[in-house]
Amino acid sequence: MLRKKNFIFCVRAVIYSLMKTGFQDRIRAVRANLRKRQVDCLVITNPANVTYTTGFTGDSSWAIITKSRTHLLTDSRYTEQAQKQCQNAKIIQRTNSLPETLVTLLQKLKQVQSVAVENSISLAGFEALKKKVDFRLKIAEGIIESLRSIKDSGEIAAVRKAAKISAKALKQTRRYVKPGITENEMAGRLDFQIRKSGAANSFETIIAFGPNASRPHHQPGAKKLKKNDTILIDFGVKYKGYCSDITRCFTIGRAAKFYNQVYQAVTQAQTAAITMIKPGIEIKKIDAAARKVIADHNLPLYGHGTGHSLGLEVHEEPVIAANSKGRLKPGMIFTIEPGVYIPGKLGVRIEDDVLVTQTGCRVLSDSCLHWM
Amino acid sequence: MLRKKNFIFCVRAVIYSLMKTGFQDRIRAVRANLRKRQVDCLVITNPANVTYTTGFTGDSSWAIITKSRTHLLTDSRYTEQAQKQCQNAKIIQRTNSLPETLVTLLQKLKQVQSVAVENSISLAGFEALKKKVDFRLKIAEGIIESLRSIKDSGEIAAVRKAAKISAKALKQTRRYVKPGITENEMAGRLDFQIRKSGAANSFETIIAFGPNASRPHHQPGAKKLKKNDTILIDFGVKYKGYCSDITRCFTIGRAAKFYNQVYQAVTQAQTAAITMIKPGIEIKKIDAAARKVIADHNLPLYGHGTGHSLGLEVHEEPVIAANSKGRLKPGMIFTIEPGVYIPGKLGVRIEDDVLVTQTGCRVLSDSCLHWM
Repeated sequence: MLRKKNFIFCVRAVIYSLMKTGFQDRIRAVRANLRKRQVDCLVITNPANVTYTTGFTGDSSWAIITKSRTHLLTDSRYTEQAQKQCQNAKIIQRTNSLPETLVTLLQKLKQVQSVAVENSISLAGFEALKKKVDFRLKIAEGIIESLRSIKDSGEIAAVRKAAKISAKALKQTRRYVKPGITENEMAGRLDFQIRKSGAANSFETIIAFGPNASRPHHQPGAKKLKKNDTILIDFGVKYKGYCSDITRCFTIGRAAKFYNQVYQAVTQAQTAAITMIKPGIEIKKIDAAARKVIADHNLPLYGHGTGHSLGLEVHEEPVIAANSKGRLKPGMIFTIEPGVYIPGKLGVRIEDDVLVTQTGCRVLSDSCLHWM
Repeated sequence: MLRKKNFIFCVRAVIYSLMKTGFQDRIRAVRANLRKRQVDCLVITNPANVTYTTGFTGDSSWAIITKSRTHLLTDSRYTEQAQKQCQNAKIIQRTNSLPETLVTLLQKLKQVQSVAVENSISLAGFEALKKKVDFRLKIAEGIIESLRSIKDSGEIAAVRKAAKISAKALKQTRRYVKPGITENEMAGRLDFQIRKSGAANSFETIIAFGPNASRPHHQPGAKKLKKNDTILIDFGVKYKGYCSDITRCFTIGRAAKFYNQVYQAVTQAQTAAITMIKPGIEIKKIDAAARKVIADHNLPLYGHGTGHSLGLEVHEEPVIAANSKGRLKPGMIFTIEPGVYIPGKLGVRIEDDVLVTQTGCRVLSDSCLHWM
């Protein structure tokens, strides 16, 4: 018994040490960036960036990285959780507002002369801070986001697992999908399977029957599924903080010929985009490849981008759009999701999560069923 | 058949006209405020404020109120939805970023000389805007929030209905609550009942078994319910955009004597606070009344506030805390949620949604069961 306990203790210690190393690497990279900018301290206000640098998954909290220390400013609702999750940050339980607590901390940190604040902070928060400090605050843009755009092996495994859980949840929902079920009930059944598996939704599930799918962000309602109806499902899972984002379109019974033609066109558009993905390719070319297929079929072009990066957040930079700058790099993960929308008639979108590898790409959501 | 159709048409027309009047009243109040501040145009960036002034419930969209017109800047994912939901706003489908689209609009609106932007905008958004306009932007604070703090009869009815749906969903979940169920599965069962009823969650459901409840914002996990265990459930429903937020604590089997004593103390603290609620009372006195009961029982004081307003958002201003300023007014709706947290041992919180009436108060969540 004792040996087992010791073994468990050892395994835990290794995991914690690995966790610590991962976060330490990230913080080292942030510090290198701050040195270049001649900044002593970075105030991290975007919750996903707080998670990325400290491991903390609650909200209403900021991380502060100085040359020698990381602090997490949180409140009593999260103190216990922060103590468990943050191996490398000093936790400060605040009783005042975040700007007030930060100013008190900065007054104690005497070596700190220049402070940069993430531009994700609200204008209200920034104005409150500005009033309280007697030096000029710098504005930081994309320091952590740029690190986050390249995923490490642990992050890739988490997104892949999130996609697998999504696939399983959709498969388990299939038996409830019969004429008479409402969009709301189907969304509820799918969400329940996700929850039961120990994961959470990465965003509010979209279920759209028939022509409702022409609204890309349709909110599920009381509409009932009919015989020979079509279904669009756009859903995602959050596993260990990492998101999947998948869209599938199905028909029950016999779909109209035109619907099948559109479905084929969208499939071809998605394949055209995915086939191009490899390191070095200009991002906007991926977008153009998908759109060309839709245009060649004389179908209306979709108004949204062809995809977006995803990781700790379901929408991250860079996006795959006509005006995107830059080129693909190994370790990027993004969605490829062309669509066709004809109001009052139909909506078809197919979306997968794709990893850029050293030589090409890998579809992380390939376990998710394509036909009911 | 025709008569029935005509009747339905008439009813719809009346509803739309009422909807329109409601929004027009709100916009009239905003315009009066802008005149006082000598501002020609308000840029509304907080999604809940966009909903409040236009009826639009999507995201990534801004509302622009000038002296004579309301515009909604949205994108193609939401155009169809916006056309249905917004009776009083001109819809502009953007292809560029929100700041870029706004600047193009402002250039067309020649009478507009001074523009105020809500301080909920991100610093990034504000900086992008500043770069593009050749005049000084003003910062607007709390214009819409101040209107939203007093609910009209339709809003009160929606919160009450949200609370009723919550109550029904919890009742329907009861039969699954048996030893062996995990926190995750119980959260999933509850969320499914909410979805099935046609509503949505107003925030991520918290289910905490046993000592897990000492973390006020515990994230449900794989922990299984035991015989003679305790459960904390903090959940809410969004109905027609309006939120409920309710916490209940239960024991299955026989609870420990100390748990029951704590439960009684928290109940008394909540009653003490609710009993005081009537127009004119200083808000901080409500907080003090609840805390005094906890202190009198020699129990540790909770680190969070005693409550927060709620409506279109689950957390609104004013909050009920020790440093709150101002007095209660009829039409305010807020939670009263004292708690006791002892890490490693227990957590008890009881939370109800309370309306300030002309003479006292009404508990809107009184239909929600208190004991399983």
